[in-house]
Amino acid sequence: MKQLYVIKIGGNVIDDSEKLHQFLESFTALEGDKILVHGGGKTATTLSDELGVEAKLIDGRRITDIETLRIVTMVYAGLINKNIVAQLQQRNCNVIGLTGADGDMIRASKRPVKELDYGFVGDLHETSVNTDMLNKLIHAGLVPVFSAITHDGAGQLLNTNADTIASALAVSLSSLYKTSLIYCFEKKGVLGNAEDELSIIKKMKPNEFEILKKEGIITGGMIPKLHHAFEAIKNGVHEVYIGRADELGNIRHNTFGTRLIQNYDA
Amino acid sequence: MKQLYVIKIGGNVIDDSEKLHQFLESFTALEGDKILVHGGGKTATTLSDELGVEAKLIDGRRITDIETLRIVTMVYAGLINKNIVAQLQQRNCNVIGLTGADGDMIRASKRPVKELDYGFVGDLHETSVNTDMLNKLIHAGLVPVFSAITHDGAGQLLNTNADTIASALAVSLSSLYKTSLIYCFEKKGVLGNAEDELSIIKKMKPNEFEILKKEGIITGGMIPKLHHAFEAIKNGVHEVYIGRADELGNIRHNTFGTRLIQNYDA
Repeated sequence: MKQLYVIKIGGNVIDDSEKLHQFLESFTALEGDKILVHGGGKTATTLSDELGVEAKLIDGRRITDIETLRIVTMVYAGLINKNIVAQLQQRNCNVIGLTGADGDMIRASKRPVKELDYGFVGDLHETSVNTDMLNKLIHAGLVPVFSAITHDGAGQLLNTNADTIASALAVSLSSLYKTSLIYCFEKKGVLGNAEDELSIIKKMKPNEFEILKKEGIITGGMIPKLHHAFEAIKNGVHEVYIGRADELGNIRHNTFGTRLIQNYDA
Repeated sequence: MKQLYVIKIGGNVIDDSEKLHQFLESFTALEGDKILVHGGGKTATTLSDELGVEAKLIDGRRITDIETLRIVTMVYAGLINKNIVAQLQQRNCNVIGLTGADGDMIRASKRPVKELDYGFVGDLHETSVNTDMLNKLIHAGLVPVFSAITHDGAGQLLNTNADTIASALAVSLSSLYKTSLIYCFEKKGVLGNAEDELSIIKKMKPNEFEILKKEGIITGGMIPKLHHAFEAIKNGVHEVYIGRADELGNIRHNTFGTRLIQNYDA
């Protein structure tokens, strides 16, 4: 099977033009088929502030009301997506910017209202990704760049978690490619010691994750992140990397961030 | 040769949800390959006002400064494009929203500064359209929906006239398709009598245009519009229609708006 990289970047890269430049260079240089998924960063918050639209938070969770949906559609699918596309085109990387609505690539369901109404937020399910159409674009020589907007097939755009989109794309394309899912975040990898930025765990299997969790070495927001990563592996993804965007170039030397795998034999 | 329609809609359709609905129904029903090009409408002006960004006009010409480019990228490529895409997906029309930067589909040059600096405005030239890649998308079963944003290949997005984009697409695809270029505007067609909305000229050849111009029957903004339309025909487009978006359905009965052709035999 051919190699495919699905790479997710977030606000810490997008908001910093030097880091973004560095990342786009590494992304362009990465050989093989690839897909980029980007979050939004602070630009949406800045625009909300400029427009006097208050961020709606309930119990600390962000709510996507109709005004916020309008803003993220403009910022994620318009401003950020198209600027990344233009900057990658400049590097002769033939990207195509997409939301889940384009080509019906990712169809989501509006999150059901239970205790909390998240508003126009999309949840993905097993058949959300249009694998065939996505593969046609890749075969045409195009590199898809997804913003974190999907649709419900009934005319409604939906704000959708970028990590979840990256994972769903990688899982779905595992039927056709040997997929590597790469999450870029602010640290060089998963740390074995929170106090030491250099204590990067190089490799991790599911049972090791369980041990590190029990021992209190992996804590907080890293637990669900790794849990979802191992879920992706269980569902067909070959490997998941977690590391810092500016070090992406190291992936060919197998020295990028933390590598999650099913077995060391793999 | 297969038939291909390139249809351009402007603000008068986009700003009116009932008219837009009507148009999207007709667009979906239109058989054969097709491409939609949309302008911006009042949403960009509304957002500019909300953000306190003043429209820059010099000698009555709109200038795209960096702030305005940011706004049109958000509104045209984000808000309007993605909402049209989602609404066409709802109708099972498998559209894909694009700017000229996506897939390097339309490469423009920043308009040179002469008496006037138009700012980040793109001009098209003969080789602007990436015909091969566009044709690959159409062959994949996708219907391209272009917003009026292009790029220069050097990382810069450019605001570009939507009429010009539609014409360039139709001309370029004439090598592969029998192309019909359709301009939707606020009237039912070119009028033989400005006072009479029903005095639609059904058909027009270049020599007839010259006569109507000399006789003062066709005046004002309609002159350059028709001039450009006949240029497109000279460059390979089979026919150009000018009419009202909500009447698009009539095109199959040959009763839509004004039809411009090279010869009546054609």
